[in-house]
Amino acid sequence: MKDIHIDLKPIGVVINNHSDEEVRNSLFGVQGQIFIYDDYKDGLCCLQGFSHIIVIGYAHKLKEEDKKVLKVRLRKIERLYNVQTPEVGVFSSGSPARPNLLIISILKLIDIKDNILYVDNLDMYDKTPILDIRPFTMERIPNEEIKVPEWYAKLFNKIKDK
Amino acid sequence: MKDIHIDLKPIGVVINNHSDEEVRNSLFGVQGQIFIYDDYKDGLCCLQGFSHIIVIGYAHKLKEEDKKVLKVRLRKIERLYNVQTPEVGVFSSGSPARPNLLIISILKLIDIKDNILYVDNLDMYDKTPILDIRPFTMERIPNEEIKVPEWYAKLFNKIKDK
Repeated sequence: MKDIHIDLKPIGVVINNHSDEEVRNSLFGVQGQIFIYDDYKDGLCCLQGFSHIIVIGYAHKLKEEDKKVLKVRLRKIERLYNVQTPEVGVFSSGSPARPNLLIISILKLIDIKDNILYVDNLDMYDKTPILDIRPFTMERIPNEEIKVPEWYAKLFNKIKDK
Repeated sequence: MKDIHIDLKPIGVVINNHSDEEVRNSLFGVQGQIFIYDDYKDGLCCLQGFSHIIVIGYAHKLKEEDKKVLKVRLRKIERLYNVQTPEVGVFSSGSPARPNLLIISILKLIDIKDNILYVDNLDMYDKTPILDIRPFTMERIPNEEIKVPEWYAKLFNKIKDK
């Protein structure tokens, strides 16, 4: 199983009128669009009305060597808030430099017109290939139960005070 | 962009002692494990303490023709609760039959020992390849804002009464 290769095709693409720099510097993302290719358009039926969606993107601007990254600092937070962050494993972070270069984002779904999704909180660059979309709902995750480790709580407490 | 192929490799694999049948019939998933391959073990650093993680799996038991599915009924809910569900687009559902056969799950993280994650709410069969993991946190999604469309709210109200 370990050595299988999994071959995926984009179902759509990000249309983002903000520069990469602007996307990088926005902690909670920007407004933008996701264009779903005609072949997959029927898959969008009944998505209108969900306020949030989980979107899987592929960090196409990263390089082969970025797949080898296993530990990172939370650079965006360091840059925006001028705080030091601990070095953590990539699976404890949202860093796009990670073994499969996948981006997993929970986005606010503002509207759907034809095969274009209008979204907020977008943290993907223009032309990022989109691999999958599904609704984000809370049935399975009662809010009061969500816990985070001490390093993470401390970090976000520091940020809140800024 | 549309015609690029994205080649991914598993970072780990599901170890599930429940039968496929048991997994299929559990609405909120089962307890099981995710084994992370040694090459990627360092990526797990600092994940302990998050109560929930987002996990991307690949539905390896599905077939080439399942990638063509764009509309589905919510079969699991129909089977378990004996209610009729509307036909919806795959991107409005959690169906594993979808263009890239990706499974996106928010799992409860019970414990981590070495490179094994002990999880609950697991809705993936034994030996499912795992492509990515990241913490699930609530900073970006205030709970009161999560909205769902009428068809979905109605369906879950019916289920609640059962």
